[in-house]
Amino acid sequence: MSESSERDDRHKARMQRKKALIDEKIAEAQDEYGLLLVHTGNGKGKSSSAFGMVARALGHGIKVGVVQFIKGAASTGEEAFFRRFPDEVRYHVMGEGFTWETQDRQRDIAKAREAWAVAAELLADPEIGLVVLDELNIALKYGYLELAPVLADIESRPLLQHVVVTGRGAPPGLVEAADTVTEMALVKHAFKAGVKAQKGVEF
Amino acid sequence: MSESSERDDRHKARMQRKKALIDEKIAEAQDEYGLLLVHTGNGKGKSSSAFGMVARALGHGIKVGVVQFIKGAASTGEEAFFRRFPDEVRYHVMGEGFTWETQDRQRDIAKAREAWAVAAELLADPEIGLVVLDELNIALKYGYLELAPVLADIESRPLLQHVVVTGRGAPPGLVEAADTVTEMALVKHAFKAGVKAQKGVEF
Repeated sequence: MSESSERDDRHKARMQRKKALIDEKIAEAQDEYGLLLVHTGNGKGKSSSAFGMVARALGHGIKVGVVQFIKGAASTGEEAFFRRFPDEVRYHVMGEGFTWETQDRQRDIAKAREAWAVAAELLADPEIGLVVLDELNIALKYGYLELAPVLADIESRPLLQHVVVTGRGAPPGLVEAADTVTEMALVKHAFKAGVKAQKGVEF
Repeated sequence: MSESSERDDRHKARMQRKKALIDEKIAEAQDEYGLLLVHTGNGKGKSSSAFGMVARALGHGIKVGVVQFIKGAASTGEEAFFRRFPDEVRYHVMGEGFTWETQDRQRDIAKAREAWAVAAELLADPEIGLVVLDELNIALKYGYLELAPVLADIESRPLLQHVVVTGRGAPPGLVEAADTVTEMALVKHAFKAGVKAQKGVEF
């Protein structure tokens, strides 16, 4: 038996075991319910991956609600794109420019409360299968919104509705309530700068 | 002066400094060129955030190419959605089912090479502003593709074209070549399971 064909056989056996495990997991996943996902950390991808989930949901015919709590100066691309589908995506951008553009805390608080009123409507609508609360963590961190009423609205949502909350510095109470928490960690030019690969990064 | 109005003033001063810094960064970012981004790690969001970038690019009128190196059993939502825009997104899914469905290594290698031929075409097309190479890291990890020719095609792409590579276990050579590497780390039910919050996770 050649070395290459032995390698192929080992591969086949390994893949058969893997298939059995995957099939088992799929069978277990029948009890569906809406998840609360939190994307936090200093790295990139917190909002992008929420918007990727929007695309995925739309591909499955699921209606989506989006509330952006901090209007990005730069990345308005998602907004322009998803506003093409008003029947499928309810898209709300709150406030006007970054908070460091307005420099008026009381006004920011009022805008955040208006934004939460829209979020609460989406969280009460069983026709919406996915709600994205983009940069909500920032609004909580600055004290524009209080966690308790926010969590109460999230936890009383329809059984099958998924919620994704993004932003740095997710508060502990939100992390506790979440089904899945993902930390996006930025590895900056690790090799280029001659810095040793950071622990926990898989390369 | 009341405590609340003092807090508002401190907030205003802090936000003014922040605005000055942000304006400076925006001014610096005039020299644009295409970036090579790598999304790796064991957490969720590696592919989703690439697909969020697809939505963002489309919102900016940028054409996109996608090659999926491992066909997902479950998340075909993005594919269904982005195939609605054949003039804006060139979408290719290679192979047939997961590799543990086929259990034939030589066939997987042939499929991966076919997929790379499509990727190489996208990487040579100056009309494509963003190329997503989804789960390429897995194809490299299993040895279906060699890193050197893959990197050569990536590095000879048009000046303004962005590339996103996703998948666990990004190889060191790819990390070295990348402009930005993000590790998505999963924090599993940390509080729920009574486990102490993991170091480096910001909560």
